Amino acid sequence: MPGKRSPVRRPTMRDIADRAGVSQSAVSFALNGRPGVSEITRDRVRRVAEELGWRPSTAARALSGEGAATVGLVLARPAHTLGVDSFFLQLVSGIQEVLAERHLGLLFQIGHDVHEECAVYRRWWAEHRVDGVLVVDPCRDDPRPGLLDELGLPAVVIGGAPDERHPGLSAVWADDAGAMASVVDELYALGHRRIVHIAGLPDLAHTRRRIRTLRAEAERLGLSEVQSVPTDYSDTAGAAVTRRVLGGTAPPTAIVYDNDVMAVAGVAAAAELGFSVPADVSVVSWEDSALCRMVKPWLSALSRDSVEFGRTAARALLALLDGGPAETVRVPVPGLIARGSTGVMRPGRGT
Amino acid sequence: MPGKRSPVRRPTMRDIADRAGVSQSAVSFALNGRPGVSEITRDRVRRVAEELGWRPSTAARALSGEGAATVGLVLARPAHTLGVDSFFLQLVSGIQEVLAERHLGLLFQIGHDVHEECAVYRRWWAEHRVDGVLVVDPCRDDPRPGLLDELGLPAVVIGGAPDERHPGLSAVWADDAGAMASVVDELYALGHRRIVHIAGLPDLAHTRRRIRTLRAEAERLGLSEVQSVPTDYSDTAGAAVTRRVLGGTAPPTAIVYDNDVMAVAGVAAAAELGFSVPADVSVVSWEDSALCRMVKPWLSALSRDSVEFGRTAARALLALLDGGPAETVRVPVPGLIARGSTGVMRPGRGT
Repeated sequence: MPGKRSPVRRPTMRDIADRAGVSQSAVSFALNGRPGVSEITRDRVRRVAEELGWRPSTAARALSGEGAATVGLVLARPAHTLGVDSFFLQLVSGIQEVLAERHLGLLFQIGHDVHEECAVYRRWWAEHRVDGVLVVDPCRDDPRPGLLDELGLPAVVIGGAPDERHPGLSAVWADDAGAMASVVDELYALGHRRIVHIAGLPDLAHTRRRIRTLRAEAERLGLSEVQSVPTDYSDTAGAAVTRRVLGGTAPPTAIVYDNDVMAVAGVAAAAELGFSVPADVSVVSWEDSALCRMVKPWLSALSRDSVEFGRTAARALLALLDGGPAETVRVPVPGLIARGSTGVMRPGRGT
Repeated sequence: MPGKRSPVRRPTMRDIADRAGVSQSAVSFALNGRPGVSEITRDRVRRVAEELGWRPSTAARALSGEGAATVGLVLARPAHTLGVDSFFLQLVSGIQEVLAERHLGLLFQIGHDVHEECAVYRRWWAEHRVDGVLVVDPCRDDPRPGLLDELGLPAVVIGGAPDERHPGLSAVWADDAGAMASVVDELYALGHRRIVHIAGLPDLAHTRRRIRTLRAEAERLGLSEVQSVPTDYSDTAGAAVTRRVLGGTAPPTAIVYDNDVMAVAGVAAAAELGFSVPADVSVVSWEDSALCRMVKPWLSALSRDSVEFGRTAARALLALLDGGPAETVRVPVPGLIARGSTGVMRPGRGT
């Protein structure tokens, strides 16, 4: 069928009225759930509307105070760190699943930093473009919770611990501190005393929780040669820091990487320096993905269900949109899957 | 500052009228670019509106026929194949960059298949939710172009060759056929005669273009031991097919993988079978990413600028929304970056 057909026309309330044999105002009353029409008429109008594929225009719904039927998500990270990141697509996939049940759209924007993100929120709010937002990557001195509180825009902070200064915002988070403590305990039990944590962006809330916990655990266990080194999450940084610490005078016998990309790059860098995994150095990836099973040996990894994390966050936002109170939801602590990259410290290596 | 502040109020046309000392209708005329006010008043009103941070509501703009100021994108792929896929985030990043200049939002949805995707388009259209859409992963017997033509929804098909049956749609695509031909020529020049192409999803238009070209080139060069094997893009499939073809009686001396994830998994599988890269088998990845530089040797890869691809697609959609004619834009053919994984065929291997 060559050529362009003329576009079909959207069904209107008038079409429904004609087909159902009632007045346009009866159709309006029926479809908006207002009194003034009989139950029989209401049923007939709804059936005809369904047959015709009629839907209220989002714009009309927004003006009538029913909201934009849209939820916003801004991702503000340096573009090169998004390259090989499976977490966000999985998170968004879980968010979508829940929003789709309610026919809510997800308005998505990639920004450069939190200040640009704030400008986006202001614009979305001024233009009535979203009913609420999902905030990712909470960070130090974060201007976003204060702004969202001020605007009265319903919001869920993903990965943020509860913040009493902003009781109007919901939060969905995992206990990174507990996970870090369990990783350190596990490595300690295997005999490791010199541990390096190659961390993510230093201003992110969850990076800070992990660094604080590592320090506290080291003090508790009396380990003086434990440190965190923040990076930008890139494979380049993962490899560079690995080379630096393994090339030092007292190289670590275990390394914890804050993502899978850095862990894989780090294992390659270690091999170049003649370090064998896990004989010379044990490796843990804080994120399990296909990547962790693409190298030899397979990487021990902290596994979390990022799709479910997204679902939980979306449900928390829906609860706010439905008029519920702000809440803090704690998702399960990521669990360590021990694979081939972690082992007992070899005698002599730790001295 | 503990406690929740009361939300600030959005500035209205009345606020602008008060501050500017003019009537509300003068404000309306001035801001909507209609005649009836002097240039001096228009300038003053615009200045005051800017000072107050006023913006037209998206809903009001949509009802006045100015559109939803939103563009839609549905991603319909099996969730597990999205795991480690850098292409889409980069594409979306480029799309965003161009849309942001015009303050257009990107409404994003993940679906299961093209039929669900069609249902989403119908709903978006019926609800006036988007002004146009970007269509990815064009495929065999694709129902989407016909539907979008029928609905009259402006659309750009990303990765689709021009389709004369749907002259209303724009297309942005790269010449995969040309790229495949150049890869085969390069491998042929290195002495390779037995080449396997571990392909992506078999129904996707670009997979089909690559498979067709490989077959044509093999015929032209008189190569009888050349084949394409379609997969689901996963690392598991990449490893499994690699094992199968290398374990056969006349194993290939060169393998072309349709993405980076399969290539990396394939190299690991080859190593397990005792095949050294590139001495025993040359490897090409059809997608360059950090992954290709995380393995030893670094992978030769077809490199394309996915961010720029996204920008080009968004610009093509803006041109349609501005009332321009449908057009087909060809982006540069991906170029082969030769790294350590491709080499001259070792004497004796090809017999």
